[in-house]
Amino acid sequence: MDIEQLLFRLQPEVKQINQTMAAEFTSIKSSRLAQVVEHGIFNGGKRFRPLLTVLTARLVTYTRMPEGIAEEEELSPPPDLYRLAMVFEFLHAASLLHDDVLDHAETRRGKKSANQIWDATTAILAGDYLHTRAMTLAGLVGGEKSLALIGAATSAMIDAEFRQAQAVDETNLSEENYFAVLRGKTGALIGAACEVGALFAGADKEQRAAMRTFGDALGLAFQMVDDLLDYLGDAAKTGKAIGNDFVEGKMTLPLIYALAESGAAKRQILVDLLAGEAAERQARLQEVTAIIEETGGFAYAREGAETLISAALESLQTFKECDSRDTLQGLAHYVLSRNK
Amino acid sequence: MDIEQLLFRLQPEVKQINQTMAAEFTSIKSSRLAQVVEHGIFNGGKRFRPLLTVLTARLVTYTRMPEGIAEEEELSPPPDLYRLAMVFEFLHAASLLHDDVLDHAETRRGKKSANQIWDATTAILAGDYLHTRAMTLAGLVGGEKSLALIGAATSAMIDAEFRQAQAVDETNLSEENYFAVLRGKTGALIGAACEVGALFAGADKEQRAAMRTFGDALGLAFQMVDDLLDYLGDAAKTGKAIGNDFVEGKMTLPLIYALAESGAAKRQILVDLLAGEAAERQARLQEVTAIIEETGGFAYAREGAETLISAALESLQTFKECDSRDTLQGLAHYVLSRNK
Repeated sequence: MDIEQLLFRLQPEVKQINQTMAAEFTSIKSSRLAQVVEHGIFNGGKRFRPLLTVLTARLVTYTRMPEGIAEEEELSPPPDLYRLAMVFEFLHAASLLHDDVLDHAETRRGKKSANQIWDATTAILAGDYLHTRAMTLAGLVGGEKSLALIGAATSAMIDAEFRQAQAVDETNLSEENYFAVLRGKTGALIGAACEVGALFAGADKEQRAAMRTFGDALGLAFQMVDDLLDYLGDAAKTGKAIGNDFVEGKMTLPLIYALAESGAAKRQILVDLLAGEAAERQARLQEVTAIIEETGGFAYAREGAETLISAALESLQTFKECDSRDTLQGLAHYVLSRNK
Repeated sequence: MDIEQLLFRLQPEVKQINQTMAAEFTSIKSSRLAQVVEHGIFNGGKRFRPLLTVLTARLVTYTRMPEGIAEEEELSPPPDLYRLAMVFEFLHAASLLHDDVLDHAETRRGKKSANQIWDATTAILAGDYLHTRAMTLAGLVGGEKSLALIGAATSAMIDAEFRQAQAVDETNLSEENYFAVLRGKTGALIGAACEVGALFAGADKEQRAAMRTFGDALGLAFQMVDDLLDYLGDAAKTGKAIGNDFVEGKMTLPLIYALAESGAAKRQILVDLLAGEAAERQARLQEVTAIIEETGGFAYAREGAETLISAALESLQTFKECDSRDTLQGLAHYVLSRNK
């Protein structure tokens, strides 16, 4: 199943998620605030995170039903599942609104960013609003367990951002450290999206753990592929400048591996460039990409992502075969095959 | 009881609040993040909001005890009350961290602001961290009702900020609109701090409503006095430039009253200045202050704040007389008498 087919099949769920989000904004009194949060939410996005919550909940519910009661496609999840799923889109949109202010980004998904259309204050406050609504819904709809999971994921994300910023100064960053930061940055929220879906559906301990494993692996692999695309992607598709991570001195797995495994001479080239100026790193990007390629850094990161996706797929095997499981498998494959 | 005596008596509670907050930061992995949130929290502040939660909880508990069981000073609130009270300081500190970035503020409480010591990204993310921790604790310690109250107060605050920004363009702002914005901006969180304390202590419906009335009135009066100090305060004490609100075109009650009640000629002066340049408003500040004074705008706002504080004190009368009630009364009087 390719991504187009996957998205086609997911259209009804996406529509329901979007309707649920739109209904949530009717309580806003300021017309300006309403406009900005609507822009933050409805300016594109595949609803990847809320879809994971809905699909894991469906899969767990179906697996827990005695045989022959109903088909999986007959399940009609209650509105609260969509309200809970929406929390993850709100948190994601809030962090994008804040990131765009902090990076002085002019565009987001090919359109003007909120900080450009309005201003920094507007974008920061709108992010705060989405954040508050998300945390409140997490507790009121999902209960204490969901709130604790989501709170832990969100604070881990921020903590990881700080550790990543501090790690920029370290050219001898360990693989372990890289994964610790990665786990915090994306894994945490995607893992929580899956675990919260399982919780909502009344998963037992094993099912809940399996969904967590699935989500954590998916989130990590997603980010590792992102790091690969940064070096090897097509800028026209990814919408980002190639080699940006290296130019900024950001230590990702292909580079960490190359620093550890290349010979002394090549290692020195990398170390000197990392200690030097960004312009020099930009100028010698092709050479660096060649060193990483020769050392096997890209293949190593690629294999790492593949291993994670295998583990993710493996943990789906304990659930009954059905459309939701197929779709979750399709999303896992997409993480590896995506080129933007 | 003057404010010095009040603060002296409150020292043990403040100490316990501070210890509870410090303990909360030990789970942070990034040393940088830990530094920034500690700066945000421990760089001054009277702990006004968490004190209200602790004091209202004590007062409700004491009032609900049968006569003769224990004295009010023997009550030893559980650690969870301090963890819940801390939520309000975290939310307050988070909003100050964000405000300072958005206002490009260089100082906060006479010291360098976080965005100056570190940078905007650091201050925004640290605010987000405190926000997340606050909302999580609200639900896990205070339960669903507290989370709903705190979530509603926080989103109302942001909504009100937007309405205030939009209202800057309206020189015919109504008193009703002024109070609606004011209620959102400060009243909401101070009202919630009191109501959550009452809830924690098992208040009945009437007691809970009485504490909400107390907190809402206190919060509104606090902000009205702030608006008066902006015109009439001593810059050396308030730490803010006098007349700043008028220079920025911000519509507060003394000015709204003067616009409504002064004669046609004076009203026209105010309208023209509000439609003109900030520099002109700055230059003619003394004249404007005189017009507001003559029209009775300051006296009107002052009486409004006094009426609110009377209502706040009135709603305390349904509770038993004790130290906590005395202290809450003292805080209410302080709101009127403060000069910074």
